[in-house]
Amino acid sequence: MVKNRLKEFEAIFNPQSIAIVGASKGKKIGGLVVQYFLNAGYNGKIFPVNPTETEILGLKTYPSVREIPEPVDYVIMMVPATAVLEVIDDCIAKGVPAVQLFTAGFSEAGEKEPARLEREMVTRARRAGIRLIGPNCVGISVPAKLIPLESTGVIGQPGDIAVLAQSGGHTEFLADVGLSRCIRFSKLISFGNASDLNAIDFLEYLKEDPETRIIAVYLEGITDGRRLFQLITEISPTKPVVFLKGGRTEVGKEMAASHTASLAGTRAVWTAAMRQAGAIEVNTLEEMADTLMAFQYLPPLSGRRMAVVSQLGGGAGGAGVLAADICTSLGLELPPFVGEVKDKLKSLVTAPGTILRNPLDLSLLGRDPALLKKVLSLLADQPDIDLIMLNERPTFLLIIATEAELNALNDVLIDFKHRKPLVVISPPGGEHEAERVAVEKRLTEAGIPVYPSFDRAAKAITNVIRYWEFRNNSLS
Amino acid sequence: MVKNRLKEFEAIFNPQSIAIVGASKGKKIGGLVVQYFLNAGYNGKIFPVNPTETEILGLKTYPSVREIPEPVDYVIMMVPATAVLEVIDDCIAKGVPAVQLFTAGFSEAGEKEPARLEREMVTRARRAGIRLIGPNCVGISVPAKLIPLESTGVIGQPGDIAVLAQSGGHTEFLADVGLSRCIRFSKLISFGNASDLNAIDFLEYLKEDPETRIIAVYLEGITDGRRLFQLITEISPTKPVVFLKGGRTEVGKEMAASHTASLAGTRAVWTAAMRQAGAIEVNTLEEMADTLMAFQYLPPLSGRRMAVVSQLGGGAGGAGVLAADICTSLGLELPPFVGEVKDKLKSLVTAPGTILRNPLDLSLLGRDPALLKKVLSLLADQPDIDLIMLNERPTFLLIIATEAELNALNDVLIDFKHRKPLVVISPPGGEHEAERVAVEKRLTEAGIPVYPSFDRAAKAITNVIRYWEFRNNSLS
Repeated sequence: MVKNRLKEFEAIFNPQSIAIVGASKGKKIGGLVVQYFLNAGYNGKIFPVNPTETEILGLKTYPSVREIPEPVDYVIMMVPATAVLEVIDDCIAKGVPAVQLFTAGFSEAGEKEPARLEREMVTRARRAGIRLIGPNCVGISVPAKLIPLESTGVIGQPGDIAVLAQSGGHTEFLADVGLSRCIRFSKLISFGNASDLNAIDFLEYLKEDPETRIIAVYLEGITDGRRLFQLITEISPTKPVVFLKGGRTEVGKEMAASHTASLAGTRAVWTAAMRQAGAIEVNTLEEMADTLMAFQYLPPLSGRRMAVVSQLGGGAGGAGVLAADICTSLGLELPPFVGEVKDKLKSLVTAPGTILRNPLDLSLLGRDPALLKKVLSLLADQPDIDLIMLNERPTFLLIIATEAELNALNDVLIDFKHRKPLVVISPPGGEHEAERVAVEKRLTEAGIPVYPSFDRAAKAITNVIRYWEFRNNSLS
Repeated sequence: MVKNRLKEFEAIFNPQSIAIVGASKGKKIGGLVVQYFLNAGYNGKIFPVNPTETEILGLKTYPSVREIPEPVDYVIMMVPATAVLEVIDDCIAKGVPAVQLFTAGFSEAGEKEPARLEREMVTRARRAGIRLIGPNCVGISVPAKLIPLESTGVIGQPGDIAVLAQSGGHTEFLADVGLSRCIRFSKLISFGNASDLNAIDFLEYLKEDPETRIIAVYLEGITDGRRLFQLITEISPTKPVVFLKGGRTEVGKEMAASHTASLAGTRAVWTAAMRQAGAIEVNTLEEMADTLMAFQYLPPLSGRRMAVVSQLGGGAGGAGVLAADICTSLGLELPPFVGEVKDKLKSLVTAPGTILRNPLDLSLLGRDPALLKKVLSLLADQPDIDLIMLNERPTFLLIIATEAELNALNDVLIDFKHRKPLVVISPPGGEHEAERVAVEKRLTEAGIPVYPSFDRAAKAITNVIRYWEFRNNSLS
């Protein structure tokens, strides 16, 4: 029997009203969170709860959840662990369907009394039909519903990537990186100790969620590995699952136990199971963000054949050599430009310092938008090229070109992106870093994935290709 | 017989006068290079050479090198390949000791006539005792002598790292990254096709150079591998050599042939030889910069035992889990905090959400400078800790702290750095990126290495430790 998680979790992901228990005045987290919801423009009702205040940031404030005169869909709890049972009882009395606990100091503390308290809280909540998120988490952000991340207030543009993370810090990190790199989220879900709702529950939801096309998962441990494996196997053929396992080493495992009271399991077993289930395993948060960026913006990739253009504005032979080393060592192919395409390149590109190979070094000619357009167009016409990687260093280009010329070059890239999958490499550093960041923003906002190095681009692309290979094989 | 390269290369690295052949007015490279030398404040004489101008940027301009009435130590040649023989003859007539060729279009073009031209040029120069740098390179920058990189004009603060690179683009890249990350250079040497002076010559110089303590080498190929191996074996016991090999794969090799006319050799042979010689091999330019940063700022490391503090300002349990995974999978150790140190930590750090393990999660308490100072001091006193890695996210801290408090935390780090080797992780992204960059700059300027991720920090630290293990073993 398939549960309808979409309906069940409506109060969590689309609450019409939110109570913030432990709301306060000033710059403490209980004050900030109210401010964050106001700043984000959340258009449901907000009820601050604090026994000693009557008003916080212009909002009527209640002494307890019980005393709120209107329905409450969702409670965010920011009180000390010792106070949670009382608040849970209030929520039961009020008939609240969902409670999220920012509060930490439970089973992850590795001590008896806090662990008992957590169990008691879960028992009471479940008996009353309340679903709990956390404790020890930073909750849920839903950009489309103007619900910000409660710990940092960050809210980006809505997108179709869901993040499901057993770490508040990682959730915050991905939200921050998303803001800077135009990686856009449907939901960010931090669920900490998972004392009630856990990864399985949320994955069941995300499987059904029409707003979510790509799923990122950070897990430190799971009690029902078999169900997780089965679920990811079900999800992978329609939605890519990018997976990062925390606690892959002995020391990491011990740390995970302290962090979210998780039993981490053996690395090799996880890796093998996740691969079989079709999940794309990554090793760092950066690789996760990079891979999400590629899934978000690139169409399905049908092969591993890259054309590398290094770099706009010249001085790129060495970049081409290392790009070739990196790509081919990851199993990407760089078909040589031979026959007709070579002849056409020769007729287009004539200057010392250019290298008409793959990688292609346009040298100083690469600052000419008309030439760039012709070269890209030629590469787009090659059926044996699946993707173009292009190295652009605005820092370097601005030495020999004006900002208008730089913009014209990037116009060419933006106009081109629908002709062939395109990825831009834009390494940070140097005197024109502000202009480089502006170019990166412009490209990513236009839907072109941008990476700080060939290394990171190639890893992300390889991950995405591996997914499409899995998907094509599983369909055939 | 040991040659005295210091004296021999005096004209190259400390020229009293420079002629720029192909200097011009306007924004072309021949005009920019004159501007760059003026901007940098180079205090030798600059002689622009151009047959159709009498003055460029206020400097008297000569029709040829021959006609310059004063001695010329060093010639930068920016004329087309077809003109180089004539200019070389002028340099011979003038008695110039060293000529560097920005000019490309020689043997790397893979054609007969340019290759013949390059050989002829070398023959004439050698007969006259002129040393050539290049062709097809961006020359030499010596920050202490206010000699900028000729292709970009970049010049940073002087330091003790020499870069020797067979790629102009990589030289520019490292100069740019150095500027942003306070990685400081004694010399940056780009030598392109190496038709006369090659990697061996320059390494012999850098071996003797008292201004150089650390050497970075990017090579695509070498004609005398045996001598290179011998030389690095001689250098490594006193100066670390960080080595990046371009053309490690078949495609990379072919590209290298087109880039600098190099025969790249087998990857496995290079790696084994370099390791035996004591060089630290890296895989990307980012890893090279990261490793140079660690060599530059960290004292000799006597072991692999890390204390990890994640992160200042809270929400760091997950970061600790991944840091543990990354560090231990690279062979770094994270000794558990037990006994007395654990008791002391317990007495110092009391709040829910903290994790008193290694990695240490100070949670929200990590925003308190006085506490941070005590915790770091305690860790510094532990003889089984060789280095402290600390995760700081100003982006996050600024939510709960003022800029003054953020500065006070970083004051603690800067005051602390002499008590125990310290590395800071500062991941980019989020709403306060400008403030984060300012913190990074402040820390690196104070001599604390800063990395964008645990992954990159741990790799750099591992590379440095490997060097000190090699050095200690080779001395015993």
